[in-house]
Amino acid sequence: MLRLDFHHSGRHFLQIPGPSPVPDRLLRAMSYPTIDHRGPEFGALGRRLIRDIRPIFKTNQPVIIYGSSGTGAWEGALVNTLSPGDSVLMYETGHFATLWREMAEKLGLKPEFIGLPGYEGWRRGVQPNMIADRLRQDRKHAIKAVCVVHNETSTGVTSDILAVRKAIDSAEHPALLMVDTISSLASVDYRHDEWGVDVTVSGSQKGLMLPPGIAFNAISEKARNARKAAKLPRSYWDWDPILTSNETGYWPYTPNTNLLYALSESLDMILNEGLEEVFARHIRLSVACRAAVSAWGLEIQCCDAEAYSPVLTGVMMPSGVDADEVRKLIYEQFNLSLGAGLGKAKGRMFRIGHLGDCNELTLMAALSACEMGLIMSNVPLKSSGVAAARDEFVAQKRKSEARNVVNYKRS
Amino acid sequence: MLRLDFHHSGRHFLQIPGPSPVPDRLLRAMSYPTIDHRGPEFGALGRRLIRDIRPIFKTNQPVIIYGSSGTGAWEGALVNTLSPGDSVLMYETGHFATLWREMAEKLGLKPEFIGLPGYEGWRRGVQPNMIADRLRQDRKHAIKAVCVVHNETSTGVTSDILAVRKAIDSAEHPALLMVDTISSLASVDYRHDEWGVDVTVSGSQKGLMLPPGIAFNAISEKARNARKAAKLPRSYWDWDPILTSNETGYWPYTPNTNLLYALSESLDMILNEGLEEVFARHIRLSVACRAAVSAWGLEIQCCDAEAYSPVLTGVMMPSGVDADEVRKLIYEQFNLSLGAGLGKAKGRMFRIGHLGDCNELTLMAALSACEMGLIMSNVPLKSSGVAAARDEFVAQKRKSEARNVVNYKRS
Amino acid sequence: MLRLDFHHSGRHFLQIPGPSPVPDRLLRAMSYPTIDHRGPEFGALGRRLIRDIRPIFKTNQPVIIYGSSGTGAWEGALVNTLSPGDSVLMYETGHFATLWREMAEKLGLKPEFIGLPGYEGWRRGVQPNMIADRLRQDRKHAIKAVCVVHNETSTGVTSDILAVRKAIDSAEHPALLMVDTISSLASVDYRHDEWGVDVTVSGSQKGLMLPPGIAFNAISEKARNARKAAKLPRSYWDWDPILTSNETGYWPYTPNTNLLYALSESLDMILNEGLEEVFARHIRLSVACRAAVSAWGLEIQCCDAEAYSPVLTGVMMPSGVDADEVRKLIYEQFNLSLGAGLGKAKGRMFRIGHLGDCNELTLMAALSACEMGLIMSNVPLKSSGVAAARDEFVAQKRKSEARNVVNYKRS
Amino acid sequence: MLRLDFHHSGRHFLQIPGPSPVPDRLLRAMSYPTIDHRGPEFGALGRRLIRDIRPIFKTNQPVIIYGSSGTGAWEGALVNTLSPGDSVLMYETGHFATLWREMAEKLGLKPEFIGLPGYEGWRRGVQPNMIADRLRQDRKHAIKAVCVVHNETSTGVTSDILAVRKAIDSAEHPALLMVDTISSLASVDYRHDEWGVDVTVSGSQKGLMLPPGIAFNAISEKARNARKAAKLPRSYWDWDPILTSNETGYWPYTPNTNLLYALSESLDMILNEGLEEVFARHIRLSVACRAAVSAWGLEIQCCDAEAYSPVLTGVMMPSGVDADEVRKLIYEQFNLSLGAGLGKAKGRMFRIGHLGDCNELTLMAALSACEMGLIMSNVPLKSSGVAAARDEFVAQKRKSEARNVVNYKRS
Repeated sequence: MLRLDFHHSGRHFLQIPGPSPVPDRLLRAMSYPTIDHRGPEFGALGRRLIRDIRPIFKTNQPVIIYGSSGTGAWEGALVNTLSPGDSVLMYETGHFATLWREMAEKLGLKPEFIGLPGYEGWRRGVQPNMIADRLRQDRKHAIKAVCVVHNETSTGVTSDILAVRKAIDSAEHPALLMVDTISSLASVDYRHDEWGVDVTVSGSQKGLMLPPGIAFNAISEKARNARKAAKLPRSYWDWDPILTSNETGYWPYTPNTNLLYALSESLDMILNEGLEEVFARHIRLSVACRAAVSAWGLEIQCCDAEAYSPVLTGVMMPSGVDADEVRKLIYEQFNLSLGAGLGKAKGRMFRIGHLGDCNELTLMAALSACEMGLIMSNVPLKSSGVAAARDEFVAQKRKSEARNVVNYKRS
Repeated sequence: MLRLDFHHSGRHFLQIPGPSPVPDRLLRAMSYPTIDHRGPEFGALGRRLIRDIRPIFKTNQPVIIYGSSGTGAWEGALVNTLSPGDSVLMYETGHFATLWREMAEKLGLKPEFIGLPGYEGWRRGVQPNMIADRLRQDRKHAIKAVCVVHNETSTGVTSDILAVRKAIDSAEHPALLMVDTISSLASVDYRHDEWGVDVTVSGSQKGLMLPPGIAFNAISEKARNARKAAKLPRSYWDWDPILTSNETGYWPYTPNTNLLYALSESLDMILNEGLEEVFARHIRLSVACRAAVSAWGLEIQCCDAEAYSPVLTGVMMPSGVDADEVRKLIYEQFNLSLGAGLGKAKGRMFRIGHLGDCNELTLMAALSACEMGLIMSNVPLKSSGVAAARDEFVAQKRKSEARNVVNYKRS
Repeated sequence: MLRLDFHHSGRHFLQIPGPSPVPDRLLRAMSYPTIDHRGPEFGALGRRLIRDIRPIFKTNQPVIIYGSSGTGAWEGALVNTLSPGDSVLMYETGHFATLWREMAEKLGLKPEFIGLPGYEGWRRGVQPNMIADRLRQDRKHAIKAVCVVHNETSTGVTSDILAVRKAIDSAEHPALLMVDTISSLASVDYRHDEWGVDVTVSGSQKGLMLPPGIAFNAISEKARNARKAAKLPRSYWDWDPILTSNETGYWPYTPNTNLLYALSESLDMILNEGLEEVFARHIRLSVACRAAVSAWGLEIQCCDAEAYSPVLTGVMMPSGVDADEVRKLIYEQFNLSLGAGLGKAKGRMFRIGHLGDCNELTLMAALSACEMGLIMSNVPLKSSGVAAARDEFVAQKRKSEARNVVNYKRS
Repeated sequence: MLRLDFHHSGRHFLQIPGPSPVPDRLLRAMSYPTIDHRGPEFGALGRRLIRDIRPIFKTNQPVIIYGSSGTGAWEGALVNTLSPGDSVLMYETGHFATLWREMAEKLGLKPEFIGLPGYEGWRRGVQPNMIADRLRQDRKHAIKAVCVVHNETSTGVTSDILAVRKAIDSAEHPALLMVDTISSLASVDYRHDEWGVDVTVSGSQKGLMLPPGIAFNAISEKARNARKAAKLPRSYWDWDPILTSNETGYWPYTPNTNLLYALSESLDMILNEGLEEVFARHIRLSVACRAAVSAWGLEIQCCDAEAYSPVLTGVMMPSGVDADEVRKLIYEQFNLSLGAGLGKAKGRMFRIGHLGDCNELTLMAALSACEMGLIMSNVPLKSSGVAAARDEFVAQKRKSEARNVVNYKRS
């Protein structure tokens, strides 16, 4: 029988930047018996989901729900809109932007990868002027799409998508704008329609608080039109059969029924808390987390205060310290999972997730484990990060006594 | 909050040929908290799954586990082994064989679709001699793969895969053999290695008793070699990055963690009952189901006794009766889901699933609902199918008193 | 780890007259994390339960919720209202009435046990005239309470409580009326206030569909007054500290938090279906069950058609057949639990439960298993009981097409 | 539907001294379908529980499992061994000792309540010499039982039971020794047999990590003999019918089936971790908690270092601070439940639970919330308790690197 007991006692603290901790309500919803995905009960569920997922993307346009990881939704975005050999302008914010570029290559596209040079490029967000400049040069409009990552999960850097939109517009370039919001959706303010995004890619296991297994493409009219001419082979990822089936609440092939139960519950939770309050809560937690890192005297991976991620914080180690050894010690001794440094950042930093179903105390616990692990790893610390986060939370609470206070529902 | 209560009281009977009823053990396993898919605890789980899934396919070769529906695994089989424009010989056993062919076309392959003519072709299994004949004609070996469905879910016809293998061999043709076992795996005897299959496609929501969301490719050395020359674009479905990650128990992108919990539990259940006993149980249930249909005086969709499916039984309606109306009445009045007739069979028949976590009484309940629904639909019945199934079960039990008897474990 | 796998595959059919099958919604609700039973969230839950449990008893008076089995609630009724040596008139309807009398003796009361003589007394309900006669003789009002069982779980006989009330009134006797509704509450119409009952005893694991562990005392003003003079020692069962704590939604000692979650869910389900519809559904199922027993040519334990239980049916075996052997065979071969004959009925009969979260198909499955088991036990059967139940259900459905039809909620 | 969402996001931290947080494994086990409590599968479960609960009490004698709260088990201890008017020597360690005395009075016993005077009596453990002195005076052996609380949940004081045993022996007094271990069982070393305890009372919702609803009496031969002469009325609590039923694995009335599932899982967890390691873990956590309180400059309720509880720590507020206001603020602002001061301690202190399924990080989170709440309540703090606990944990880990390290099971 399944046993997940590497640690003998107590709850595991999952503070990686996704999968985020799945709330009990979602786990319970997900464990309802599987029903007939062609029956009327499923249809009612499907129609509800297709309708209520839209406000999460701030869109009135269709949202495709795939049974796959977010990686699958990247593929969906590309194969529905592009043809073999098409040029794609992709911006290197970090590891996941890099993986998306690799995918584009594997699919036979010609990605052009721009960004600030060296490791420093991974410490800042998308530079819209670089995009504008490159597009202006592209007089013949060979570039068919611009692909950027809203919140780069590998670094904790959030880019300004509206500025990217404006950059494209300023260049008067017809390229599609595709945005990866896998780790920002339902955590960081995002506006598919208002910002003129053509394909928004997302996943289930971050702000939506689901286990992995579901992914999304929110699509614009322009993207749907692009699909008609797009020649990359596609079948599983093809939008149109899904949209057709979705009209009555179904999918063309067997959907991920039990994860859809969890999605339904997630939408209830988020819409009940209020999307704007969800965003504000993520910001509050991230401010406290950065206060801790600063107090330790360690560097935050993101070095542009405008681009700090509300979702995760990358903590850089002093030279000579292997971040993975610190993470391993913390995992083994304190039952906490942190995110590893990836790609260029491997061994240099670890990532603290503070997204989804997170609150002050889970973050305080995570920071405590980090502080104890750093001490045990003999990393010199300027002062207590835990104390700094504590002070930040106290200040936040004092500023707004009404905020985040228990919800005294009367039955 | 999630409510699945179209029927006010009592348990829903899910007797479609998949998703099959998910046992409580699996639902509970699936509702454990999501863990870090890069952590050591996940690695232990991953290594266990990658090892123990193999005996289910009767293979010592690698099995790819995808986060997708079975449809995705169809795509995985094709894009890993074939190049644009390749000819593929596909055999029309029914609706799902037809959908697979459509996928091949969408992906830019040239499927050639053979089979017995008309509706009767949907009532029999693969005719190996037709395959042998066609391959013999293909002197230049333009055909790169032969694709067949082991158990055609839309009809309840099980084909003889060993005979297909022999047909290919008799034609001395190098085509790959690809087999869809989506609705037969872990329910009907199947031997990937012994039968020389190159790619076996399967899914989670049938014999494995999981919810939908996981799918499989079992692959041969020959298939892995074919991949090297295959030119269809592939990224999500690409076997090699998965096999590389799997070596240490991980996946290249976020796997479907909670469904993998359920898979672990499923493997425990199946390997504990014993795969051969699982197969025997499915046969016993199918014999009783067909006894009922014969007693009613209705036709079984499959008209070749050698090809009767142990997994589901297609029940044909007399002309003038809309099978979907009967199904709807049964759903509404008796809280039972049956499978619809699909494609050419639409409205002509319904399908009774008797697979996965099924036993005598769930089948008796299903047959009771069918009998009541047929009576209420004014379908003339020769005699009671329920009584016939009852007599069959009594005869089975008398023949082997030891069989299926409660397992008196002493604590 | 917990394994409940005496039968290898398929769902167990629990058709005993309690515990009844617990719906998934309740199991999921019950598995939410335990909260502080002194915190504000618990208080909101407590207030809701204390309010909404009342309509289930059809009372506006307080209902005590105990953490115990129904047996505990029997004790609660006696120790709160009576003094050592008090006479109590108890009516022997069957095994549970007998156990209640034994409890009264153990507690130092003087129960007088009346009823029709011999085994036949267990086949009929309470005879109100016997109660009236006895009370009229009791000129000095030595009898302090009349105790009867509404639905005798051991026999499947439902007594007329209003007639008992009238009998007491006709004798102008001040005795308290105490009624055991453990197996009738929320399944059979029952009216605590209208029928002038002083203490109604009940439990969780029957009509309320919960697991065992919670029990009830609904109490009248007269009972509360009797408590003041009652001298039996009491502490755990004492009503008054509970009523005092209940005023704010709490309990004086740690309540059964997770079962209270399930109770909350149960109240939602029952009040949503509608209590009267719940009663009607139980009657429909019981009519079909008795049709089956009659078709088999077997005797129903209850021999008064006015007293047939909507909750369970006792099936008598022909002489020479050991009912427990039949039950054992059915359990082992067909994965169905039936109730045993108890006390005087041991070995003579088995009991089919059709209560709580039951529907037509679970009953058809149960009857199929009984029929197969009876055949395998060589019990001569007149005709098919399954066919008779089938015909009854078809007739019921035809009579009222609207009834029990799926609830087409539009999302 | 059940909603427990007074706080919008993130996990609730339940750090009261019981109910302790219920591990996911237990919640999942508890949500399996209820089975027939008279069937063979239940019997196997029952036999297992009756056997494996004994080592938890360190006894080879029978352990009674009641369906009730711990309060019920107090009543069980008294009514099985004593007669109306019997004298009982009870020691006042705190609120729960006081409640037990009140129960004894309600049941018609004559409890004599001794202890150190005033509030200071609530800050120390049982004084064995006071018991010895009193018993020596009792030449006629009017005192039938000595009742003490092992771990006083209201104060965080653990008494030395072996010393109490020796005190009774030194007085050569035949009184029964009854011990309440409700909040110490499976958390603090306890030895029913070795220490010569006659009745050990316990509950499910503390060290056993279950929800409330099950309680225990471990009993000695002497206690069973006392039962024969004991005249308090008893029925639900009567040991003998339970012991008789238990011989085959059953209970005389319907047991709390689903909580017994959780008990089975709990025994697996505890026996797998090892009882002595469980005790050591509780000690480690309590040392860190007290380090925090000392650092704050606040007083620990228990003022005898020999009697510090490994299970909970009482934190006294400076005069003028209402501890309940602090608790309320922490609950509302930080989603953490703490225990209130009870009885004489009301408003003076709050209690931090660190028992059951607890680990370093849950305690760090709890201490963080306390520290933030104290600051927001303007309670002057000497220094950071969180930092002190951090240092203590680091020191513990450094002392024993092997200890508490992740359990690298290879699959």
